[in-house]
Amino acid sequence: MAKRAKSVRPAKPVSAVPAEPSGPVDCFPNRHPDRDYEIKIVAPEFTAVCPRTGQPDFATLTLTYTPDKHCLELKSFKLYLQSYRNRGIFHEHATNAILDDLVRSCRPRRMTLTGAFNARGGISTTVTATYPAPRGS
Amino acid sequence: MAKRAKSVRPAKPVSAVPAEPSGPVDCFPNRHPDRDYEIKIVAPEFTAVCPRTGQPDFATLTLTYTPDKHCLELKSFKLYLQSYRNRGIFHEHATNAILDDLVRSCRPRRMTLTGAFNARGGISTTVTATYPAPRGS
Amino acid sequence: MAKRAKSVRPAKPVSAVPAEPSGPVDCFPNRHPDRDYEIKIVAPEFTAVCPRTGQPDFATLTLTYTPDKHCLELKSFKLYLQSYRNRGIFHEHATNAILDDLVRSCRPRRMTLTGAFNARGGISTTVTATYPAPRGS
Amino acid sequence: MAKRAKSVRPAKPVSAVPAEPSGPVDCFPNRHPDRDYEIKIVAPEFTAVCPRTGQPDFATLTLTYTPDKHCLELKSFKLYLQSYRNRGIFHEHATNAILDDLVRSCRPRRMTLTGAFNARGGISTTVTATYPAPRGS
Amino acid sequence: MAKRAKSVRPAKPVSAVPAEPSGPVDCFPNRHPDRDYEIKIVAPEFTAVCPRTGQPDFATLTLTYTPDKHCLELKSFKLYLQSYRNRGIFHEHATNAILDDLVRSCRPRRMTLTGAFNARGGISTTVTATYPAPRGS
Amino acid sequence: MAKRAKSVRPAKPVSAVPAEPSGPVDCFPNRHPDRDYEIKIVAPEFTAVCPRTGQPDFATLTLTYTPDKHCLELKSFKLYLQSYRNRGIFHEHATNAILDDLVRSCRPRRMTLTGAFNARGGISTTVTATYPAPRGS
Amino acid sequence: MAKRAKSVRPAKPVSAVPAEPSGPVDCFPNRHPDRDYEIKIVAPEFTAVCPRTGQPDFATLTLTYTPDKHCLELKSFKLYLQSYRNRGIFHEHATNAILDDLVRSCRPRRMTLTGAFNARGGISTTVTATYPAPRGS
Amino acid sequence: MAKRAKSVRPAKPVSAVPAEPSGPVDCFPNRHPDRDYEIKIVAPEFTAVCPRTGQPDFATLTLTYTPDKHCLELKSFKLYLQSYRNRGIFHEHATNAILDDLVRSCRPRRMTLTGAFNARGGISTTVTATYPAPRGS
Amino acid sequence: MAKRAKSVRPAKPVSAVPAEPSGPVDCFPNRHPDRDYEIKIVAPEFTAVCPRTGQPDFATLTLTYTPDKHCLELKSFKLYLQSYRNRGIFHEHATNAILDDLVRSCRPRRMTLTGAFNARGGISTTVTATYPAPRGS
Amino acid sequence: MAKRAKSVRPAKPVSAVPAEPSGPVDCFPNRHPDRDYEIKIVAPEFTAVCPRTGQPDFATLTLTYTPDKHCLELKSFKLYLQSYRNRGIFHEHATNAILDDLVRSCRPRRMTLTGAFNARGGISTTVTATYPAPRGS
Repeated sequence: MAKRAKSVRPAKPVSAVPAEPSGPVDCFPNRHPDRDYEIKIVAPEFTAVCPRTGQPDFATLTLTYTPDKHCLELKSFKLYLQSYRNRGIFHEHATNAILDDLVRSCRPRRMTLTGAFNARGGISTTVTATYPAPRGS
Repeated sequence: MAKRAKSVRPAKPVSAVPAEPSGPVDCFPNRHPDRDYEIKIVAPEFTAVCPRTGQPDFATLTLTYTPDKHCLELKSFKLYLQSYRNRGIFHEHATNAILDDLVRSCRPRRMTLTGAFNARGGISTTVTATYPAPRGS
Repeated sequence: MAKRAKSVRPAKPVSAVPAEPSGPVDCFPNRHPDRDYEIKIVAPEFTAVCPRTGQPDFATLTLTYTPDKHCLELKSFKLYLQSYRNRGIFHEHATNAILDDLVRSCRPRRMTLTGAFNARGGISTTVTATYPAPRGS
Repeated sequence: MAKRAKSVRPAKPVSAVPAEPSGPVDCFPNRHPDRDYEIKIVAPEFTAVCPRTGQPDFATLTLTYTPDKHCLELKSFKLYLQSYRNRGIFHEHATNAILDDLVRSCRPRRMTLTGAFNARGGISTTVTATYPAPRGS
Repeated sequence: MAKRAKSVRPAKPVSAVPAEPSGPVDCFPNRHPDRDYEIKIVAPEFTAVCPRTGQPDFATLTLTYTPDKHCLELKSFKLYLQSYRNRGIFHEHATNAILDDLVRSCRPRRMTLTGAFNARGGISTTVTATYPAPRGS
Repeated sequence: MAKRAKSVRPAKPVSAVPAEPSGPVDCFPNRHPDRDYEIKIVAPEFTAVCPRTGQPDFATLTLTYTPDKHCLELKSFKLYLQSYRNRGIFHEHATNAILDDLVRSCRPRRMTLTGAFNARGGISTTVTATYPAPRGS
Repeated sequence: MAKRAKSVRPAKPVSAVPAEPSGPVDCFPNRHPDRDYEIKIVAPEFTAVCPRTGQPDFATLTLTYTPDKHCLELKSFKLYLQSYRNRGIFHEHATNAILDDLVRSCRPRRMTLTGAFNARGGISTTVTATYPAPRGS
Repeated sequence: MAKRAKSVRPAKPVSAVPAEPSGPVDCFPNRHPDRDYEIKIVAPEFTAVCPRTGQPDFATLTLTYTPDKHCLELKSFKLYLQSYRNRGIFHEHATNAILDDLVRSCRPRRMTLTGAFNARGGISTTVTATYPAPRGS
Repeated sequence: MAKRAKSVRPAKPVSAVPAEPSGPVDCFPNRHPDRDYEIKIVAPEFTAVCPRTGQPDFATLTLTYTPDKHCLELKSFKLYLQSYRNRGIFHEHATNAILDDLVRSCRPRRMTLTGAFNARGGISTTVTATYPAPRGS
Repeated sequence: MAKRAKSVRPAKPVSAVPAEPSGPVDCFPNRHPDRDYEIKIVAPEFTAVCPRTGQPDFATLTLTYTPDKHCLELKSFKLYLQSYRNRGIFHEHATNAILDDLVRSCRPRRMTLTGAFNARGGISTTVTATYPAPRGS
């Protein structure tokens, strides 16, 4: 398994990330960069469209991050989430893609995103992705 | 105890598992295999039949896994669970057998299945099995 | 403290325990002995009699164990608990004595029993005992 | 005790404590001293008087301990708590003083006391003290 | 620790902190300085003004700390929080600034402050800061 | 509307009902027929099949009735509900048909049945029918 | 229906009840007989034995009554309920019989007893009886 | 409609309604028209757009009705609600307009619609409309 | 009303009540006497002593009243309740006596007092008294 | 109604109320004046100042009304509530005064306002006022 880890994640994406924000959500300067502190944002009104059925999906997104030099601006974050309203995307992909966008936007020290999607057919799904990714086994 | 472990689990089932899915639940490719992330699926409508009494049993199944190259397809997962509707099977065996089937289906990095069965005679049972199995003491 | 541990628990009770069940609750063979998995049983209708006041006591028992070669049979477990209905026994002793009986019955790898007793005089008591006992400090 | 405080806890207060109970709450012998097990007692009807305002304070006390040779007798414990009914004492001091008294009474292996005091002026306070005290930073 | 602090966060406020209280909240002597114990204070009626919109913000503040030689006096703490009533301040800054003021006031061994702000535009924010700051990544 | 009532419910179905049980659920004699009292039975494990999709439906049935000369026997009631396990039937029809069967079985003075069906497509349905039917508007 | 009422309940049991207590629970004089007020007593630890299976049943009894000249004495009430501990009796009969005994004991102006029995076979039963009985339809 | 409003409801709108469905939601025949029974449908995933701000609104709709000759078909109902996804409409108008559409669709005997909209600016709104309208004061 | 009071409960305290406050709790003038409105006060920290056992009792008092010319002053009300702290009094008497005192203090149009006493011996009691008393049966 | 108002409460504000809005909160035209429907608004962030102690008070306001020709505009309503932020006013007066202002603002058919104020000294107060006022006793 050590082998897989070597080949698939050779350069640890963290180091490849430029230090300056370059993502779709606006930021403002973190006034307390000398302290590792945590910001949790709960957005219970996320909605997108299921690409298979064309039916709307609903989820509560929970974001937790430790800012480095920038914090996410809440209004810009809200508008970014709204851009998914009529987009077709699967649960697993939406959660990972949003995390990637947010990491690019504010370059946090750590960030975790959980998407808890409403039940369909009596079955509900929750996807949790973390940056930097925990090491595989 | 080390001795028991040697004889009973000599070849650690993990390594014996082929890399390609071969189980009863359909999958789709994981688009984010470079990141260890977690998918939780809650299925509160599982029902089977008690082999001793012939009475129906009801349970909430909670599945948590880290996908490797494949993710479980939810509709196929739902139909698979429905195949237990009229099958006679004990709590402990159902939980372990479903876990085995799901591991064979999507070859996850890690997977835990919990079956919380409704009370019978005033007593309720919850069974939790994990892959790869934690090492015995 | 190391000294006390030496004299009081010299041979770690685990090793003294015979490999075959010999307790008051019936068992059935564990079909998945190669995997360490957990079974939780909640029995909210336990009742005994307080030896001091002669008044009935009520408790919710929560049992969690990892089976080795045998699992506890639920009906036999229920009847065993009912044998306490008219017996006088203190909270602390009941929890420890039941744990001992269950360990002798199914020889688990690990087992924890919690007895949460209803309040008396505005004060409620919960006793938790574990096998094998955690090492003292 | 002041002495020990000066030298920053060099000798672990445990050893200074005599092995026999000498506190205000009666005890009974622990019948399972060979096993480290936990007893939790919740007393939601604690009341004392605020020494500053003369107004009554109310709290829920939660005690968790691992008995050594003695267990606290519940009725004696209840009467002990009632002795605070008309006594003026601050939250922080009450929690620490009661812990000290209970440690002296039953000489436990470990003990934690939490006093969750009702809100005053829209602000509520919870104090948690542990024996033996965790090491400072 | 001093070494890491120097290079990564050169002016680390921790080391600059004088041993005596010098902050805006009054204190009283801790009568149990020889024991590391925890005090939790929940203040659900915090309100300030959003500097961007001029609209009032509402939050529940949860403070947890281990006192050293001084404890925070609750009435003074309440009045201090009320001083934010008509002040314009962002969530992230309010939480960090209050923590700094409380650390300066009572010189605790450890302190954590959580500000859980009410939702705006369907999105709620919770900020958690700790002293001394956990090590950065 | 008066017209419809005349033609559809001309003779109030109650009077047409024979005094003796003739339904699919067994009964036992009511020992307190001189008192109007209420029996409520909650069956949270009802399952049938959706005739449109072939997918299983799940519901909690809540029955409330005032017995006349007979009470429903619980085991027979349970087996009767299980007879729907593999039957295709709509929510509205299932609730009304079960009520009819239970009325025929025990000839109650009053009876209400509520079927609270699990959500499908994010929408849940609850059907409530009463005997004798309340008068239309 | 008027006919049935005539033959089954000809003499309305209320009037036959003597004015003085004559039941199994002790009473004390009501000091406020000039005011209709309500006393509610909740006894969550009722247990009896199922006459069919020999298995113990558990219920929460909720009694609400308006005293006339006497109030039920709580300790005597508790001992009375304990007399059912090893008695075989059905849910419906237990609730009605206890109500009768309590009415005879304290001659209330109004009294309602609800017995909420724990689930058996996934189905729970609640029986509610009232004195004086409401008039049938 | 303006006309009827002028004359203060002289002709009770019910009589003006044609007996046959003519609204946007499909129906199926009610198989139990001789009984007044109630159907409750909860749709927690309603979303529309605020016409003032252009921001999305979210609400839980709860519909309760007594069918006459037709019942609402759930899938058609779901698609109808989805047609509001990108439409700008106020809370009060949405609730009344949907009620009107549903009444026209299935001609119920009675119908109530409640729209519980998520909070905006810390203030939440719930609108409840009923058909036929209760008489004004 | 005077007529019924004369024959059924000859001395009905209501009519004897003078129009001006004369009870132990201070009042302030009601500024909205032209409107019947309701004030509810919840006091969860009531404590007295059981006259039989000498043990403390605890209760939550809930007062609801419609003021006439005077409203109860909250601080005076709190001090009045504290006067029961060390007084021996039964549940039923305490509730009725406090109601009488409060009626005398503020001469309300209507008043209801509920005392919900903590469980003793596993049984809890709630007493509810109303002024003016509802008509007896 | 005017008649009753004249004799019992001579100056009954209701009759004096002009048909057109004249209060401090803006309105918009009700598009469904022909139907009596209900609007409920919950504002959990109300805060004012206690005129006696100078300390801030906090309350959740719940408004329920049936509009006539006008509905309250939410943003204007929010700003109106904020005007109390630094005003000294008692609970009872605030609730009645706000109700009066809202009635003058939108001339509703019916309106009820409940102010649930946070506890002070362990005692919480809820005031409920209704327009038009219910008849006095």
